[in-house]
Amino acid sequence: MSHNSFGHLFRVTSWGESHGPAIGGVVDGCPPGLALGEGDIQPFLDRRRPGQSKFVTQRQEPDEVRLLSGVFEGLTTGTPISFIIENQDQRSRDYGDIKDRFRPGHADLTYHLKYGVRDYRGGGRSSARETAVRVAAGAIARKVLGASVTIRGAMVAMGPLGIDRTRFDWAEVELNPFFCPDPNVVPLWEETLAATRKAGSSLGAVIEVMAEGLPPGLGAPLYGKLDADIAGALMSINAVKGVEIGEGFTGATLDGEANADEMRMNPDGTVSFLSNHAGGILGGISTGQPVVARFAVKPTSSILTPRQSIDRMGGEVEVLTKGRHDPCVGIRAVPVGEAMLACVLADHLLRHRAQNPEAPATARLPRN
Amino acid sequence: MSHNSFGHLFRVTSWGESHGPAIGGVVDGCPPGLALGEGDIQPFLDRRRPGQSKFVTQRQEPDEVRLLSGVFEGLTTGTPISFIIENQDQRSRDYGDIKDRFRPGHADLTYHLKYGVRDYRGGGRSSARETAVRVAAGAIARKVLGASVTIRGAMVAMGPLGIDRTRFDWAEVELNPFFCPDPNVVPLWEETLAATRKAGSSLGAVIEVMAEGLPPGLGAPLYGKLDADIAGALMSINAVKGVEIGEGFTGATLDGEANADEMRMNPDGTVSFLSNHAGGILGGISTGQPVVARFAVKPTSSILTPRQSIDRMGGEVEVLTKGRHDPCVGIRAVPVGEAMLACVLADHLLRHRAQNPEAPATARLPRN
Amino acid sequence: MSHNSFGHLFRVTSWGESHGPAIGGVVDGCPPGLALGEGDIQPFLDRRRPGQSKFVTQRQEPDEVRLLSGVFEGLTTGTPISFIIENQDQRSRDYGDIKDRFRPGHADLTYHLKYGVRDYRGGGRSSARETAVRVAAGAIARKVLGASVTIRGAMVAMGPLGIDRTRFDWAEVELNPFFCPDPNVVPLWEETLAATRKAGSSLGAVIEVMAEGLPPGLGAPLYGKLDADIAGALMSINAVKGVEIGEGFTGATLDGEANADEMRMNPDGTVSFLSNHAGGILGGISTGQPVVARFAVKPTSSILTPRQSIDRMGGEVEVLTKGRHDPCVGIRAVPVGEAMLACVLADHLLRHRAQNPEAPATARLPRN
Amino acid sequence: MSHNSFGHLFRVTSWGESHGPAIGGVVDGCPPGLALGEGDIQPFLDRRRPGQSKFVTQRQEPDEVRLLSGVFEGLTTGTPISFIIENQDQRSRDYGDIKDRFRPGHADLTYHLKYGVRDYRGGGRSSARETAVRVAAGAIARKVLGASVTIRGAMVAMGPLGIDRTRFDWAEVELNPFFCPDPNVVPLWEETLAATRKAGSSLGAVIEVMAEGLPPGLGAPLYGKLDADIAGALMSINAVKGVEIGEGFTGATLDGEANADEMRMNPDGTVSFLSNHAGGILGGISTGQPVVARFAVKPTSSILTPRQSIDRMGGEVEVLTKGRHDPCVGIRAVPVGEAMLACVLADHLLRHRAQNPEAPATARLPRN
Repeated sequence: MSHNSFGHLFRVTSWGESHGPAIGGVVDGCPPGLALGEGDIQPFLDRRRPGQSKFVTQRQEPDEVRLLSGVFEGLTTGTPISFIIENQDQRSRDYGDIKDRFRPGHADLTYHLKYGVRDYRGGGRSSARETAVRVAAGAIARKVLGASVTIRGAMVAMGPLGIDRTRFDWAEVELNPFFCPDPNVVPLWEETLAATRKAGSSLGAVIEVMAEGLPPGLGAPLYGKLDADIAGALMSINAVKGVEIGEGFTGATLDGEANADEMRMNPDGTVSFLSNHAGGILGGISTGQPVVARFAVKPTSSILTPRQSIDRMGGEVEVLTKGRHDPCVGIRAVPVGEAMLACVLADHLLRHRAQNPEAPATARLPRN
Repeated sequence: MSHNSFGHLFRVTSWGESHGPAIGGVVDGCPPGLALGEGDIQPFLDRRRPGQSKFVTQRQEPDEVRLLSGVFEGLTTGTPISFIIENQDQRSRDYGDIKDRFRPGHADLTYHLKYGVRDYRGGGRSSARETAVRVAAGAIARKVLGASVTIRGAMVAMGPLGIDRTRFDWAEVELNPFFCPDPNVVPLWEETLAATRKAGSSLGAVIEVMAEGLPPGLGAPLYGKLDADIAGALMSINAVKGVEIGEGFTGATLDGEANADEMRMNPDGTVSFLSNHAGGILGGISTGQPVVARFAVKPTSSILTPRQSIDRMGGEVEVLTKGRHDPCVGIRAVPVGEAMLACVLADHLLRHRAQNPEAPATARLPRN
Repeated sequence: MSHNSFGHLFRVTSWGESHGPAIGGVVDGCPPGLALGEGDIQPFLDRRRPGQSKFVTQRQEPDEVRLLSGVFEGLTTGTPISFIIENQDQRSRDYGDIKDRFRPGHADLTYHLKYGVRDYRGGGRSSARETAVRVAAGAIARKVLGASVTIRGAMVAMGPLGIDRTRFDWAEVELNPFFCPDPNVVPLWEETLAATRKAGSSLGAVIEVMAEGLPPGLGAPLYGKLDADIAGALMSINAVKGVEIGEGFTGATLDGEANADEMRMNPDGTVSFLSNHAGGILGGISTGQPVVARFAVKPTSSILTPRQSIDRMGGEVEVLTKGRHDPCVGIRAVPVGEAMLACVLADHLLRHRAQNPEAPATARLPRN
Repeated sequence: MSHNSFGHLFRVTSWGESHGPAIGGVVDGCPPGLALGEGDIQPFLDRRRPGQSKFVTQRQEPDEVRLLSGVFEGLTTGTPISFIIENQDQRSRDYGDIKDRFRPGHADLTYHLKYGVRDYRGGGRSSARETAVRVAAGAIARKVLGASVTIRGAMVAMGPLGIDRTRFDWAEVELNPFFCPDPNVVPLWEETLAATRKAGSSLGAVIEVMAEGLPPGLGAPLYGKLDADIAGALMSINAVKGVEIGEGFTGATLDGEANADEMRMNPDGTVSFLSNHAGGILGGISTGQPVVARFAVKPTSSILTPRQSIDRMGGEVEVLTKGRHDPCVGIRAVPVGEAMLACVLADHLLRHRAQNPEAPATARLPRN
């Protein structure tokens, strides 16, 4: 079962609430002998950390990760890796509002209907704070994938404002507060988000994540498909409402010729694809091309503009959410999406290895 | 693990290849005492069956399901329900083409790279024929959900041609060969698909599925989210490349006010939502509103127009696929999408019941 | 979940009732490229088949297995292997007795209490007939383990009559109807069981199963321990009430010196163990020594001697079970125990390979 | 998968090494609304804690548990419950001996063969210290089972010295340092264990655990059998080499009449069993009688008497283990066995509820 775990052979269990003493996770199934320390994880947490620009929540948390098990003298031992991130900025405040009033579009109501009891402070379990656990797990997953696999992410649309894909440049992503790969759109995004913030509103986003350097053969028919697991993993991120692989929804508007990824042979005997509409996955199994996925993040539901809602006693009220919220939660979803992709791929790499230890490491045709 | 199974408490295992002796499945975890016979399953298979219009494959299969276990004197017994569908129209033919040549956009290549050996006849395991198993399982899932839950599906776009949503009428869906809810667009679709077929090409599609009458509380934080499981399940269907819940990718273009589903109280003490951008799911947990999902189906990869490709020996070839293929595989994906949604919901209903037997059956606030 | 499945990477799902149309199973996760046909499975079913001596049930079933998927041109393809065994000897008879009366020590009552509905004919799902599915799966598991691994079983006690272990000879096992490794005790067993049968009674048994040729390293701390999985798998066999590994319960009576398996080095650099009290497993992980397990089978609960019981309406009755029952169900449990051990080991071999592809194949110390 | 997790709906993940900073666990799937605090867990940890008599290890650890998530204002919230126990008595010492030399009968060797790297300090992951995590999880499981279910354990044999079962008195169990239910054998055990300790040796033990007050119907055919899961869970405890249910191995020596648990009706309409050879489980499903299991614990492998062994470099050496070890690790296994039984039962209670919400709470025949 998988209430709060995901993955099969690389298995992550997450725990913690926004304003409890800590959040953390356990990674079970990590192979032994990998070099791992807090220093391998912390940089990814730092990328996701709040308070780094005026466009993300001003909550100040060092988000310092500590490894509690599974690593000995700098190497993974094959036993479960437990890590913890203490919650430090638990601002002492009156939570009366969100204690009793349900924010439209927020998990407040459904947790209440399902469980009857919930830790409402800062959103409790449904807080985006939990994504720090995913990012930490993703850093460990990258170790499993090894240095030959590169996983990157970028924000490709903010609200209705998409990038110009002809200007897509990975080098730009780390140079602006939006993880935006198109430098030309950045000023417009800055202006728009500043205005949105000022208006007490919020914006959605689309994030693209990509993995390069993967072997072919990851995935399995028919319910262990790589794309099915990626879809589930990305959709499990807070506020995500859509996922697509490769050409995705656009592919549904094409005809069969346009959507075909034609093939030739490379001189080195590997397969050369002339396009990648499939996003690196055919029949649920990786082709060896880059795996490309995108996901849609809805606008932050906690906004300063009053909305009609109800309270815990069944009264009709207006709700507006003060406090330190991301005007575009999609920004910080970039490292989270990368991490989820890394975890799914690490899991499938181990699964593939179990069933097919002799499978080729590149898209090279087996002789038989 | 889940190579060929899905679900946890309502667990479906699928097996079979397109041109083997049969395909089938095992449903484990079905509650006892439900009335079930072949007659409850066959109508759903008939809806999906090929050969019913000129717009779907002309393969002629009765697709007759037979129950082999788990039902006694017309009632489920709580033991595993095994069902089988024999393959009858295994046309004796030369499979030389697809045996040795990889169709662009098809699983041929990745199965070959992963496994080295595959049953290429009719696509083998990756054939859309397997979806009959899903449809049968979905019929059993509907029994678990009970008569108060309605699950329906419709095709809302064919290639670039979407419906006019203001004309959306569920009653129309069964009246045309496209499961199309907008009667006005049907003639255009007919004309377009006939031309596409004649041109040896194919088209993609977008399917919408909806469940009404669900209790709130289905789903679980954070990796057992209802939407995450729906996304994984729909993405596991052949040729699906995108999934969205509620407003989905469009929601990412809205601001926070527009995307909020405001709430009022109904006179009967249940929650009244003024909109359903969330698609019936907040924080991964059902709200009691209709659950709405859409998925993108790519154009059929087996087309008559020649495409550049390679063969098993590494030669560069042209591939064109003769034979009986759906020019728009999305049409027959409608009952499949419904079935997958039913299976995920049945699974989550059982999971919810296990953890929260006292949870309310409607979106009514618990007193505490 | 695992109502009717077991294993993780080598995963078996079983279905079927004693007097339904068929029983069968699905093996998911089997590696591709293994030679497999019905001829690899049938001999194991034949060993377990009823009607072969006067000491087992006289039910006559050919128990002919048919493969329905997952094998192509004699090789496994990595897709799920479905197999079916039709039920043929469904003697048309009056089941009134066991329909309404609960046999003491039988699952009749608990199925009725749990499910309210059950297929009572021939014991339905709880019939020992289901063990044929296990035996078939075990034959596939042996293919995964490969020719270097030998799995054998023997009956080492019948009722209170144990073998003389100093006479233990594997070659004898196939030469008598008891799978008994001690030829001297066979005449006594024959006489005793004939008398037991005549008296309308039954006897229990202890079975020993052993695997030789395994690599070290199978298993995992702490809940994926090899011995824990063996214990669960053997205990899942009908009528089994006890399991032990290596010295087992006897080991609990020893002191630490006596129970220690001392070690020396072999000239070839592998570890030499001076004894095997541990049964080939330390800390849940295989040592490379033979894995040895024993399990206790209770006397058949269906006996001709009347016992006090109740009926479905709550009446107090006497029950005696006519029909074709094994006077010592432990005999036919020998091939079943072997099969379960094979399945667990195949699963752990794949799991081990996933996490530790570089681990040594023999008990040879890694250099580091 | 289940390297370090067990259970399906009540799912425990354990982590930590003996001499790392801490050990701990995550319980996922616990129903909401249960009163839970550290005070509900600590008493069970205190029972298991070392240093309480001269018959257990002198390691001094407060074993103080701290809840980090999943509980709010004293109630479980349905989100994962994380708990941590810090390691405090990490005596600074030279581990040179067990770093390089493998203790016969210990997991040292197999971890080394499997992983190549291990935290050898104090046994690392294979230390009995991990059982504190099980005990904490068991305390939470008891909450799920509720006050009507009682789980108890006792040591019924120490080495070759069994109790006199006619003197079995649960009230005695807490009155001596052995959890022994027979006061008459206690002086002999004290004398024997003192001598064993002095001789630098160790002794095995047999533990009996029992659950009373359970509803019938827990368990499921055929691989989700309650007894199969109990067997796996108890066998997963360190040093356990055998498990039996009810009459167990002794039952195999009986005939069918003697082993039958005859039934009558109670005046209140529930089933009355005249005996409990089955240990409360028939066909893998609970009968409503007490569930009774026993497990065999081998003598502690770390002993002061020198044994022949090898070292990490392949040298032949003698090993004797100084340090603070339990001369009879079975004593402290009593609360651990209780905890494992509680966890399995809690899991099955939730599973049963999911599939059969209407099943009777006592062994009362359904009307149909």
